[in-house]
Amino acid sequence: MNHIVSHSRRLRDTPFTPGVEAAGVKAYTVYNRMLLPTVFESVEADYRHLKTHVQVWDVAVERQIELNGPDAQRLMQMLTPRDLSRMQDDQCYYVPVTDDRGGMLNDPVAVKHSDTRWWISIADSDLLLWVKGLAIGAGMNVRVFEPDVSPLAVQGPKADALMERVFGSAVHDIRFFRQKRLAFAGRSYVVARSGYSKQGGFEIYVEGSEHGMALWGALFEAGADLNVRPGCPNLIERIEGGLLSYGNDMTMENTPLECGLGKFCKPAEGSAFIGREALASELASGPARQIRAVSIPGGAVIPPRKAWPLLKEGVRVGQVTSAAWSPDFGTNVAIGMVDAGHWQDGTALTVETPQGPRAAHVQERFWA
Amino acid sequence: MNHIVSHSRRLRDTPFTPGVEAAGVKAYTVYNRMLLPTVFESVEADYRHLKTHVQVWDVAVERQIELNGPDAQRLMQMLTPRDLSRMQDDQCYYVPVTDDRGGMLNDPVAVKHSDTRWWISIADSDLLLWVKGLAIGAGMNVRVFEPDVSPLAVQGPKADALMERVFGSAVHDIRFFRQKRLAFAGRSYVVARSGYSKQGGFEIYVEGSEHGMALWGALFEAGADLNVRPGCPNLIERIEGGLLSYGNDMTMENTPLECGLGKFCKPAEGSAFIGREALASELASGPARQIRAVSIPGGAVIPPRKAWPLLKEGVRVGQVTSAAWSPDFGTNVAIGMVDAGHWQDGTALTVETPQGPRAAHVQERFWA
Repeated sequence: MNHIVSHSRRLRDTPFTPGVEAAGVKAYTVYNRMLLPTVFESVEADYRHLKTHVQVWDVAVERQIELNGPDAQRLMQMLTPRDLSRMQDDQCYYVPVTDDRGGMLNDPVAVKHSDTRWWISIADSDLLLWVKGLAIGAGMNVRVFEPDVSPLAVQGPKADALMERVFGSAVHDIRFFRQKRLAFAGRSYVVARSGYSKQGGFEIYVEGSEHGMALWGALFEAGADLNVRPGCPNLIERIEGGLLSYGNDMTMENTPLECGLGKFCKPAEGSAFIGREALASELASGPARQIRAVSIPGGAVIPPRKAWPLLKEGVRVGQVTSAAWSPDFGTNVAIGMVDAGHWQDGTALTVETPQGPRAAHVQERFWA
Repeated sequence: MNHIVSHSRRLRDTPFTPGVEAAGVKAYTVYNRMLLPTVFESVEADYRHLKTHVQVWDVAVERQIELNGPDAQRLMQMLTPRDLSRMQDDQCYYVPVTDDRGGMLNDPVAVKHSDTRWWISIADSDLLLWVKGLAIGAGMNVRVFEPDVSPLAVQGPKADALMERVFGSAVHDIRFFRQKRLAFAGRSYVVARSGYSKQGGFEIYVEGSEHGMALWGALFEAGADLNVRPGCPNLIERIEGGLLSYGNDMTMENTPLECGLGKFCKPAEGSAFIGREALASELASGPARQIRAVSIPGGAVIPPRKAWPLLKEGVRVGQVTSAAWSPDFGTNVAIGMVDAGHWQDGTALTVETPQGPRAAHVQERFWA
């Protein structure tokens, strides 16, 4: 069923919306109360292009939270079980953020500028309110605010080639999940080797909305012969790669261990992050359920609008939250949360889709 | 420009979505990461019907935050400048919620059950994260969570007649912004005389999503001869009535005084709410800008997608954030934020719409 999205100021445009709409975006989702494109040509055509060429993505919906001041580092560490003590000033860390019960509040990327200045590049929840609330409640000496910073992603196998033409050969020196300041048109931009695809690429943090369209235009001009196109996070490609979507594949009801993020849950001795007791108790008992790749063979499914129950002999043992037909793997690729005892590689289950029950197979690994 | 909204689990359905979609909803907005209908027949036809008959609105997007425990009342008062000390256990209060700089974080309705149990029925921001963050940061003894409670509104001149048929004649005894527990089909529901229209009516707080569609069905069955229809907050009607929309007409950048909410900013002596110093200083100097009704005569405008600048002799002195053609008042009705010195009744300004400049008149009062 297709529905129109009603535009209003409350669902914010981004600095790149003029470019996105001139390119004929067909559908949006709303992410952090901002418009995020979901389809340009079709999900499948966008997927093929992403895996072959290079795309420019308006991911300004990854809003930034700036922590600025003497207590910035202490506050940042309070947010996450991940040990930040050895993080360098040019590193980006994927960090689960947990509440006092160990539930996931967001799964952002922390960008460290210095001990006293951080950005948090957020997934879909108003994490700003959590961080401000904590800081004020605890009387910490740090300013917490949303700066005018909008990420633009360049993703795909030709991303390095395109970025070199705009930012110079220094882009090749940026290592995975590291960032560097590079110049374009007389201004400097934080450029990180990161992004929500497995095709490789960069995220450029545009400081000052008024500079967005100049950079957008320069990337398309420089990449004409690389077949550069506007794109967006692609449902098929991100499921193949096991890239989780906060709000889809996990919510505040799930812990980082359930989300398969145990490697980020090795806190430093004595670290005072929120949810410490809950994590310790879950580490002792093991998680009750866990994220798994799920294959649904046969004809293409319609991607889920709500969680689909996973059943074993009629009993619910989990759910599928993202699914799409994968042309490259010849099956429906899916992400599910499966109860302990049923998450072993190869477990055969039934998934209840709105179009009826389908066979489903639990996999240890994602596809790409 | 029309765009499709991409459905996913992340944009939650409500307990009433099956009813809304069976009735042929045409467009949605996303509000608190949930689907909120915006159009059934047309904005203008929905408006006429709302003012003549009675409508049932899926406003489950007004998510609830429950504060439960010994420190609930203290935490609640910490959130708002409004003095809650004399609030009775059956009252609902419209409360501006402010941050340390006095900026609006939400404009919810607080529903008091007792000193130790409150609900906050929120506008469009993840206020849960703010309230939890504050409570944890300050080490308070209170549980803060989102209960499974979804408001359903009954609005329009025939709302009392319809509600009596489902909940009995006790509905007539509920005073404005008071609530009472009433029975339907063997369960009790909190019923408040409130709602986001000026046509009168109720909001029913449905506890337990699984009970939503039974109540929805009963209201439509009982109201067939009252010409009951599904509806939604109506852009034209809410502007005529001066009902502000958080995210549209005001944001975190605005204070309650700027929003014309001075009457809710008379805190009790010694009250320790967040933003106290900022409010005191603004009360001394007066707000720098303020919400005003703005009339834009002439042909119908296309409702704004972003703020439209208000100009006086070429200089920006404010902005319009909501606007629509009003059939009943024969003008475009609008809500704007106007700088001090220009907000007097009758001030003539120019508003820059995407279709060109238009004459605009500041009004002291809204239309209805």
